[in-house]
Amino acid sequence: MAIEGVVGSDVLGEALALIREEVDRHFDVLLPVPDDARARLFEAMRYAAIGGGKRLRPLLLTATAQMYGVNREAAVRTGCAVEAIHVYSLIHDDLPCMDDDAMRHGQPTVHLEYDEATAVLAGDALHALAFDILVSPQVTSDPFVRSELVACLAKGSGMDGMAGGQMMDIVAEEAGEGDDGFDLHTVTRLQQLKTGALLSASVEMGAILGRVPPEGRTHLKSYARDIGLAFQIADDLLDHEGDEELAGKALRKDADAGKATFVSLLGAERAREQAEMLVRQAIGHLSSYGEEAEVLRAIARYIVERDR
Amino acid sequence: MAIEGVVGSDVLGEALALIREEVDRHFDVLLPVPDDARARLFEAMRYAAIGGGKRLRPLLLTATAQMYGVNREAAVRTGCAVEAIHVYSLIHDDLPCMDDDAMRHGQPTVHLEYDEATAVLAGDALHALAFDILVSPQVTSDPFVRSELVACLAKGSGMDGMAGGQMMDIVAEEAGEGDDGFDLHTVTRLQQLKTGALLSASVEMGAILGRVPPEGRTHLKSYARDIGLAFQIADDLLDHEGDEELAGKALRKDADAGKATFVSLLGAERAREQAEMLVRQAIGHLSSYGEEAEVLRAIARYIVERDR
Repeated sequence: MAIEGVVGSDVLGEALALIREEVDRHFDVLLPVPDDARARLFEAMRYAAIGGGKRLRPLLLTATAQMYGVNREAAVRTGCAVEAIHVYSLIHDDLPCMDDDAMRHGQPTVHLEYDEATAVLAGDALHALAFDILVSPQVTSDPFVRSELVACLAKGSGMDGMAGGQMMDIVAEEAGEGDDGFDLHTVTRLQQLKTGALLSASVEMGAILGRVPPEGRTHLKSYARDIGLAFQIADDLLDHEGDEELAGKALRKDADAGKATFVSLLGAERAREQAEMLVRQAIGHLSSYGEEAEVLRAIARYIVERDR
Repeated sequence: MAIEGVVGSDVLGEALALIREEVDRHFDVLLPVPDDARARLFEAMRYAAIGGGKRLRPLLLTATAQMYGVNREAAVRTGCAVEAIHVYSLIHDDLPCMDDDAMRHGQPTVHLEYDEATAVLAGDALHALAFDILVSPQVTSDPFVRSELVACLAKGSGMDGMAGGQMMDIVAEEAGEGDDGFDLHTVTRLQQLKTGALLSASVEMGAILGRVPPEGRTHLKSYARDIGLAFQIADDLLDHEGDEELAGKALRKDADAGKATFVSLLGAERAREQAEMLVRQAIGHLSSYGEEAEVLRAIARYIVERDR
């Protein structure tokens, strides 16, 4: 996908490689396998949390935090809280009763590598771990910042955020593409909740760590809203046209299920144009920032250019 | 089960009736069914959270908070956070891949009344709701108290608490009663995590709301540890001897599965004696308190005297 003025891709490549290594290192410390009957739970949590994924949420969080001079370790640790929520949602999403997926990040899903009960529990335990991380001294010693982080993450992941969006996604699948199918407005709302809310929380939590007051977060939240939607359109396009091996998961499931997506509703060409427009708009929201927002701008471009 | 000196049973009966009504009323406000495709999620959350259960955890929390003059609405709201965690754990526990239970509180379990995917999501959304409740202004305006509450609940429900205990429980079931079966020490540890950790968190969160510093919570935590274990032994006895209709769920599943329990390891008589000893010991930990701890004492007795 061609976006004009692709600069800073080296900056982004380095930032992506660094955050991957940092998140893996933190999860390794956060999840020591105990010498008791809980070992299988911790092993399953490590299997899901370490080594895979783009780490887009921790990247957004640390890139935002960096703009405000936040301590790197604190930002990475907070990024792990958001990533723990993301990983738990993937484990539960892949379950037989949900999307019934066999592959994730190029390896068997947790319920196949372990078993379904362990997968449910590993997701639940990662969910609790996210909030446990936020109250650790490594994140902040300021109780006000801490409670703002908790509020932001709980809101972004719960019934008015990610979990609510996942419910809409299940209903959309049942509704199919016919007269009962979702229209563009409803699919947009669905995706704003399902993926947008947590991406948005990532950016906002970076700003919270940087002690940016709520009224100072407006442009950042607009940026996050636009890249969240662009991200989902790009995902629909990859699902439509992508390479399963590169993606490390099964593709074209939405079309097979007859589910309404941005591609089925707009067609591939208009969907692509829409994603590119959103990326330009997202970058526009950062116009009051200088060089310090270069990574956020590069992330916006990367979101529609990635091949997996 | 006969414990000498049963007093205050009217006090307890009133407290139980009151907290049931209050928790139902709060969940009704917390879970308004939206006019969109998330409706099924909210309905399933309401189905699980409203109307059923003894509300033991909110009762422990409010009874402790009351000793320190905490505002009633704040204590009940905080109790709903703990109860949301408890309810989510029951929904996930009842899933076909976990205990595969058909009845809970005398009605079909969530995955049978709705479907499995909705049950997984309703559990996840109640999990997030718990933390969302803790950061609401109705609980406290003090960020320090708020972050202590979050830390206590995350610890009690996660891999070093409830979720860890549930993993041990699954392993115990696989191990059975033979040479690989769990011994008394391991079953005690399992139960301290699986049910003890959240009961303990309930008492501690009441003390946190009352601004009791950590060193002042020692006796209350000892009380909670003892009633937690007594509660589980009583549960094993009820599973062994109880009435399915009164219990509102299937019984004698542990024995059928050949799982090591307090009753299988100690025999019913010694298990009963152990539970009674723990209740006396729990009440002993409250000796420095006067009249204000009468409800906590009554709860300790109720825990082994209840018939469901």
